[in-house]
Amino acid sequence: MPYDKSPPYPPEDFLTVRYEELLDFVRSVFLKLGVPEEDARTVAENLVTADLRGIESHGVARLRRYVDGIRKGAVKVRPNIRVVSEGPSFALIDGDSGLGQVVGNFSMRLAMRKAGESGLGFVTVRMSNHYGIAGYYAMMALEKDMIGISMTNSRPLVAHTGALGKWLGTNPIALAAPTATPPPFVLDMATSVAPIGKMEEYSRLGRKIPLGWGIDAEGKPCDDPDVIMREGALLPLGGLGELFGGHKGYGLAIMVEILTSVLSGAAMLREVGQTEAPQPANVGHFFMAIDVARFMPVDEFKGRMERLRESLKKAPLHPEFERIWIHGEKSYLTSLKRIEEGIPIHRRVMEGMKLVASEVGVRFPWE
Amino acid sequence: MPYDKSPPYPPEDFLTVRYEELLDFVRSVFLKLGVPEEDARTVAENLVTADLRGIESHGVARLRRYVDGIRKGAVKVRPNIRVVSEGPSFALIDGDSGLGQVVGNFSMRLAMRKAGESGLGFVTVRMSNHYGIAGYYAMMALEKDMIGISMTNSRPLVAHTGALGKWLGTNPIALAAPTATPPPFVLDMATSVAPIGKMEEYSRLGRKIPLGWGIDAEGKPCDDPDVIMREGALLPLGGLGELFGGHKGYGLAIMVEILTSVLSGAAMLREVGQTEAPQPANVGHFFMAIDVARFMPVDEFKGRMERLRESLKKAPLHPEFERIWIHGEKSYLTSLKRIEEGIPIHRRVMEGMKLVASEVGVRFPWE
Repeated sequence: MPYDKSPPYPPEDFLTVRYEELLDFVRSVFLKLGVPEEDARTVAENLVTADLRGIESHGVARLRRYVDGIRKGAVKVRPNIRVVSEGPSFALIDGDSGLGQVVGNFSMRLAMRKAGESGLGFVTVRMSNHYGIAGYYAMMALEKDMIGISMTNSRPLVAHTGALGKWLGTNPIALAAPTATPPPFVLDMATSVAPIGKMEEYSRLGRKIPLGWGIDAEGKPCDDPDVIMREGALLPLGGLGELFGGHKGYGLAIMVEILTSVLSGAAMLREVGQTEAPQPANVGHFFMAIDVARFMPVDEFKGRMERLRESLKKAPLHPEFERIWIHGEKSYLTSLKRIEEGIPIHRRVMEGMKLVASEVGVRFPWE
Repeated sequence: MPYDKSPPYPPEDFLTVRYEELLDFVRSVFLKLGVPEEDARTVAENLVTADLRGIESHGVARLRRYVDGIRKGAVKVRPNIRVVSEGPSFALIDGDSGLGQVVGNFSMRLAMRKAGESGLGFVTVRMSNHYGIAGYYAMMALEKDMIGISMTNSRPLVAHTGALGKWLGTNPIALAAPTATPPPFVLDMATSVAPIGKMEEYSRLGRKIPLGWGIDAEGKPCDDPDVIMREGALLPLGGLGELFGGHKGYGLAIMVEILTSVLSGAAMLREVGQTEAPQPANVGHFFMAIDVARFMPVDEFKGRMERLRESLKKAPLHPEFERIWIHGEKSYLTSLKRIEEGIPIHRRVMEGMKLVASEVGVRFPWE
């Protein structure tokens, strides 16, 4: 039975578009803005992959931000991405305020090339922008039978343990590993309890969020996504305080900050800017590629991943659950369905894209 | 005012011993069991560092396990630790069933040497044993102004999202980074809500644990640490189900499993054995060292870490908290106090050490 991890709700608010059409449209927008052919394809693929995998918060819904960033001049369409320093297995990259997806693609490819040559590629990046879903870059490694890792810092949204207000980003961690049969293992998680995209989604639907996702300006648990976004903060994975491990989510967010920004020279914490602001956001990323073949035959590794998955899936089922999932499985099944049946896009997102099309001067194919 | 992250409770159940005395005693036990001088020092340092930093669950309270492992023959006192494959920045190690601390020390030193030579050291390890606190190895990197990372898999204790029973280990993640002034940043966290050591501690005190740390055999939230240890399971960071991110803790545990065991060939999930069992435990570890100086001047990096810490600490205080902490700070302050005033050891742990002393045939200095 086809599965959708994020079925359109309410269905009448959504239009369904074909994957290729959406890809073409997004690419045409960036092309028109002066982004080179290959880079425009990269950005389009990154955004539409998010929609395909049911992570709408990071898909074409954010097109406006990237477009505005370019038009305000903070995001360069032809950045001079350069390697600041490097060794056989590492590099430090300056993204020159290019699109996060372009800088990310360049940097992950470099990590993979170094992994091909030396077994390992470790790349930290400064002067970039919002790069879309972290999992996209981790998954790039799969085509070379490598393990891929990707992290990014982001604008402040999370209150750390004991604090009020927004200080840390949702600082996601992604890891992809190849398996003998699909889907590959793909972990792609914000280090906050819930991602900011969920706030936007609940806000759009006029729904309350579960108590425990965020706090208001005074630090009280808050179920209003708008209050959290406006004056409160998200909570780190583990929640408020230390009792259920909130200090661990806080620590993971700092780990991401160290690898993406402290080490690269990117903006840290509240210094991280917005893509659509007039100043460079100076976002920091981290990428790693590990060439499995240097450690054991690729088939053996894939077989072990398969065995790991099967062991976890054959565990006795908890009575409150219908199924045991593994990371990347829901998104994979969603992408199979959406490749086949099309991608549901919210009317408001369609309207936003239409406006972008008319502003930029490209054809909007869904009149 | 001196701080202790884990003050002795109730105080009358504890004896206070000097750091050096405890170190000497533990070393003498391993020496007597045939562990070479330098290795005995490594194991003793690892265990006593845990007690010094207020992580008693991983300190001398576990001496018996290591001793039994050696006496039953599953843990080798003179292992032939070998490099199975390597490149300029990576290595795969076979620990030959040596003590986890000995294999860990060897492997982290190798990671640091590779980092010194190439900027980066990435080492995955099979055929090891329980290696004590993960943070110990991450902190080794600090002496060379490197970032240190350490992970290990462990015997099954955690029920993954949707499952009943123990499947994943508490699979900890540790990262240490140097700062301009002490304490350094030291994250050392189990990927479960609470570590197994907390169950043992609450059980010893006859106390209930907070609902949300674990489940019983039927999957119901359980506040009895003995039930959790006997027939239930710990929950992954984020708790039961996906609402508060339990699938994230589950995913982090798999990430650790991939880097420590899938990639190294170590035992996975329920295959991981016990140190004190007759068969090799085949525990897997992962170590990484990053030479900060290849990315920016060391002083600049340390200054940035300092600025990160100061920014987080100057945030407005949440009304329910007394102070904003950063990772490694509580353990650092505890170690300062305990170096000065001595380490509190529970009477039952003292009795256990006394018994070990008489069995092994070394002097017990606290008669």
